[in-house]
Amino acid sequence: MIKGKIIFNILGMLLIIEGVFLLFSTLVALYYNGYDLFPLLISSFICIIVGGLSWFFTRNTKKDIGKREGYVIVSLVWVVFSLFGALPFIISGAIPSYTDAFFETMSGFTTTGASILNDIEAVPHGLLFWRSLTQWIGGMGMIVLSLAILPIFGFGGMQLFFAEVPGPTNDKFHPRVNEIARRLWIIYIVLTAAETILLKIGGMSWFDAVNHSFTTMATGGYSTKQDSIAYFNSPFIHYTIAVFMILAGVNFTLFYYAIHLKFRKVVNDEEFRFYIGFLLFFTIVIAGYLVLHDGVGVEKSFRDALFQVSSIMTTTGYVTVNYVLWTPFIPIILLVLMFIGGSAGSTAGSIKVIRISLLLKNSWLELKRMFHPNAIIPVRINGKSVPSQILSNMLAFVVIYMLITIISTIIMASMGYDLSTSLSAVATSIGNIGPGLGQVGPVENFSHIPVFGKWFLAFLMMIGRLEIFTVLMILSPAFWRK
Amino acid sequence: MIKGKIIFNILGMLLIIEGVFLLFSTLVALYYNGYDLFPLLISSFICIIVGGLSWFFTRNTKKDIGKREGYVIVSLVWVVFSLFGALPFIISGAIPSYTDAFFETMSGFTTTGASILNDIEAVPHGLLFWRSLTQWIGGMGMIVLSLAILPIFGFGGMQLFFAEVPGPTNDKFHPRVNEIARRLWIIYIVLTAAETILLKIGGMSWFDAVNHSFTTMATGGYSTKQDSIAYFNSPFIHYTIAVFMILAGVNFTLFYYAIHLKFRKVVNDEEFRFYIGFLLFFTIVIAGYLVLHDGVGVEKSFRDALFQVSSIMTTTGYVTVNYVLWTPFIPIILLVLMFIGGSAGSTAGSIKVIRISLLLKNSWLELKRMFHPNAIIPVRINGKSVPSQILSNMLAFVVIYMLITIISTIIMASMGYDLSTSLSAVATSIGNIGPGLGQVGPVENFSHIPVFGKWFLAFLMMIGRLEIFTVLMILSPAFWRK
Repeated sequence: MIKGKIIFNILGMLLIIEGVFLLFSTLVALYYNGYDLFPLLISSFICIIVGGLSWFFTRNTKKDIGKREGYVIVSLVWVVFSLFGALPFIISGAIPSYTDAFFETMSGFTTTGASILNDIEAVPHGLLFWRSLTQWIGGMGMIVLSLAILPIFGFGGMQLFFAEVPGPTNDKFHPRVNEIARRLWIIYIVLTAAETILLKIGGMSWFDAVNHSFTTMATGGYSTKQDSIAYFNSPFIHYTIAVFMILAGVNFTLFYYAIHLKFRKVVNDEEFRFYIGFLLFFTIVIAGYLVLHDGVGVEKSFRDALFQVSSIMTTTGYVTVNYVLWTPFIPIILLVLMFIGGSAGSTAGSIKVIRISLLLKNSWLELKRMFHPNAIIPVRINGKSVPSQILSNMLAFVVIYMLITIISTIIMASMGYDLSTSLSAVATSIGNIGPGLGQVGPVENFSHIPVFGKWFLAFLMMIGRLEIFTVLMILSPAFWRK
Repeated sequence: MIKGKIIFNILGMLLIIEGVFLLFSTLVALYYNGYDLFPLLISSFICIIVGGLSWFFTRNTKKDIGKREGYVIVSLVWVVFSLFGALPFIISGAIPSYTDAFFETMSGFTTTGASILNDIEAVPHGLLFWRSLTQWIGGMGMIVLSLAILPIFGFGGMQLFFAEVPGPTNDKFHPRVNEIARRLWIIYIVLTAAETILLKIGGMSWFDAVNHSFTTMATGGYSTKQDSIAYFNSPFIHYTIAVFMILAGVNFTLFYYAIHLKFRKVVNDEEFRFYIGFLLFFTIVIAGYLVLHDGVGVEKSFRDALFQVSSIMTTTGYVTVNYVLWTPFIPIILLVLMFIGGSAGSTAGSIKVIRISLLLKNSWLELKRMFHPNAIIPVRINGKSVPSQILSNMLAFVVIYMLITIISTIIMASMGYDLSTSLSAVATSIGNIGPGLGQVGPVENFSHIPVFGKWFLAFLMMIGRLEIFTVLMILSPAFWRK
């Protein structure tokens, strides 16, 4: 039986934390003296009171969380955070429709970055700060989830690749979780601070610098400007953000190694090599085309190509150039990148480089196996052979990911959108990216999507963020039976 | 070392057979007294002479064919047949460009059905007959290849599912091949004859009936009319062709069972069930939409939906209605069907139902495996558990298929085509279907594709027809080394 009390207890605690984050945003509203001051304050109180009550009435529960309770909490927290996090937008009237407010908040917490706002500069500072903060919280939550919590559940087979992280020991929370989470948070905060300072040096205001650092490190992509990063006409800012997007898409375990000066381990990490390889390859292809075919200058071509490739592949979603105006085959390349994503154990979404590279390796080895039908040729990663269950799990993940994408594309098309718009809206939502192609392109937004479509895409963001299986498990009857 | 002589010997023999088929077409030209009489006759002579010489000078070779020689012959025969089969089109001037003539012939032999002809009715009867005949030969060759020859090489793991067919015994041709091939040919010929008679009863001329039966049974889709099957305004003809397309997409082993009255084995065959299930499901979805949303009559909706779904899924490519004018989400469904295809061991192309259903089953079981991490839950098909090597091979096939599709789509887009056109042109070529969407839609053709694009798509048709691995193996250096 699922233990409901512990779920309410933990969610209550988390809701109090959301309320505290809302209080920070209230301070920003106070500083700028915006009309969002009281809406943020009220929302904060609601979170703290509801969370406090939920925690208070369940405070005597035994604090042991089983696998299933863990799954339920991990899934529900995104819904609960978005339901409450949407409050300041709707109370202030900055986003009049609750569907829109929920979409914007879910898009924030899942670090997607798809927006329904038509005039971002008109939104007061406190709300903008809260909007960026949802992404920063989401990104931080995701790293802790994927590197500290999910491995304990033996989830997704990812633990194989993170030797530093304790493997599945038993059904209960492991005592080292707190320690690991603390170290990850420090790395996350230090990187955010470093980017903030660099962006300030590059000419941004402190407010813009903080907001963009939040949403870069989260690979979220919310900007304080309607024109996104294209607003800042500074190569230094573009390169800075590109570098930090790329850093945010790296497995955070590698930062451990780097801090301990084990650079060889970083450089030899296969996912890291594939990740950098993909980034460079597609940057060079696109930059080369822009130089040779469109006659754009070399530095500008490289910068635009690097920025867009990093932005899409790390699933951030910032924009410095309206890429749908590029010759048609470049947007198709970007569409393909939407299905790769960043590294596992980062804040990036989508399928992830490790799965893509395992798929490619396995397919390549299959050819070898055909030459030597009696030889056993395992897929290796970082020198270790990957157990067939993990391989099978990864392949199943990709199949289900594509299946959901196909079915969802048909559902979006049934609302009257064309193939480019439908497919890219789905890819960008389930991959937690942000902009797509066509009617959801880089200079468009999601405000024109019908109400049902917005809830549907918000749901896709959530299942994409949770790596699908978690949500599928909770939706399956077997989960609730035994 | 590859034995080159035996390859020339076999290809020579096959070329003589092509010459004989060209002679048949010459008889048709003679009957209709067309200007294609001498071009066909000359082409026939060229085939017989070149083939005869190639055979004559290698006639003393030892008649043992190893795996590698088998792969080379099986791959080269499509190229050789298309190079020579294009001759009557170019000699007669009916197709002035050799690129176009080669494209049309490769599209024929691979049973694709994509055409560059802008006025099919202007082509003389002998050439039209030859064009349909290329598909019929290709379909017949494919069934023999997939059910009688490839299993001997232990190829693609398909042999598991065909108990009647001898498994891999050794590296040499098995004596039973001829017997199996003979039986398959009889089934193929009987079905073709049956359809011809029904189409004649439905009101076609004998010439049209024979041609359409050829291209139905081959799941090829070449028609003698520019408007394809839409030309024949007869529900009886539409239903007849739909039924025979569906039959042609069934694993031919099941016809054995049916002849021996083992109907239970047919009905219980899992690939057959998935195949019929997919066909009915998508027919009902589309027909339902046409009735409810577009207000089309029930019978007409069902007929159009059944015909298009069967035509695309069996990779035939006939058209009774311009489906791109249907509401946008239906073409997207058809695009998805292009990646399913018919059953293994049929004349149909694409990924094939068995692989898709294994992928879906495995993904579904992965969820179960997550609930019971220590249980071994194998994928079963027809009650037998599928060995992990075969599963791995199938998954690798699908991954490589999609990878080639993605890269090829980018290549087509670089010629200036949009996403719908690029993706569907690739899907329809590698899947051996025929029409696509956009600029290669059901009432369009492939004549506007640039020269490089035509050769490229023709290459895709070949590797799709040969289930990719054969061609990849021959292209890999390891194949030629040891």
